[in-house]
Amino acid sequence: MALTIYQLTVPAFIQGFGVLGKLLDKAEAFASEKGIALDELVNARLAPDMLTLAGQVQRVSDTSKGAIGRLTSIEVPRFPDEEKTFADLRERIAKTVAFLETVQPTDLEDSGSREVTLNFPTLKVTFSGEEYLSKFVLPNFYFHLTTAYDILRHKGVPVGKADFLSLA
Amino acid sequence: MALTIYQLTVPAFIQGFGVLGKLLDKAEAFASEKGIALDELVNARLAPDMLTLAGQVQRVSDTSKGAIGRLTSIEVPRFPDEEKTFADLRERIAKTVAFLETVQPTDLEDSGSREVTLNFPTLKVTFSGEEYLSKFVLPNFYFHLTTAYDILRHKGVPVGKADFLSLA
Repeated sequence: MALTIYQLTVPAFIQGFGVLGKLLDKAEAFASEKGIALDELVNARLAPDMLTLAGQVQRVSDTSKGAIGRLTSIEVPRFPDEEKTFADLRERIAKTVAFLETVQPTDLEDSGSREVTLNFPTLKVTFSGEEYLSKFVLPNFYFHLTTAYDILRHKGVPVGKADFLSLA
Repeated sequence: MALTIYQLTVPAFIQGFGVLGKLLDKAEAFASEKGIALDELVNARLAPDMLTLAGQVQRVSDTSKGAIGRLTSIEVPRFPDEEKTFADLRERIAKTVAFLETVQPTDLEDSGSREVTLNFPTLKVTFSGEEYLSKFVLPNFYFHLTTAYDILRHKGVPVGKADFLSLA
């Protein structure tokens, strides 16, 4: 048995953005109940040199649309990282999901055998499309989604694993 | 193009345990350099009601071997959650990897169409093997791996994204 690259990307990413939206809902309700400024949550982070909540949402967005860009010939929209409010973060999520919804299974048909090269400041890595997906995209997507969750959890927002796994 | 369920589980999990081992190496070096008790890191958590570092390692282990158990007819080893030291955590990782290395691609051949039912205290969910993998196992595996990373990063351990993505 096998899963198509479409199955492993578009619907999984859209589920992830649904989770992220729900985390933001619970964060807003918590801030309102506790009299915490929403800015404090948007700018919260787990270490001084880690990305903030806003930064995690931006990277979830970029990881998902960047994966489609590298695995297909589709031109991917660019979204500047300018989000400063919960409304901005929701708009970033909505724009990313709107883009993902335009991607068709056929667009990803030949993606597993594509050569994908990532250029990092001190390193250049070449993967097959399949390896890029299983060893880079999926870990990275869930890394930023989980870290958004962990930031909110650390700030006291009552989110739980059922939210993260869309079981609630 | 498609990825087999074997490709998406065993090698990806083993890569994840390699990451976890490297995170523990850096945590030990950091603790030694800063004069921090290793216990403090083993028992560190991001919120009072979240799992500790030890708990995250135990759940990464269980998520990976539990997935193999639910997707095949293989009897999966049980490991009691008794780890209290870095040496114990390394042993838990080694035992889990040793089990995963016994799994063959053929063991997972029919796994995508299996029916997988998860029983939670207040909820029962049934997935196809494919959905269970893409919507539950992979998010959950990376959730616990990322949270282990986030705990150490929050405690000041100098781990980075290159470690998480096995690019270092």
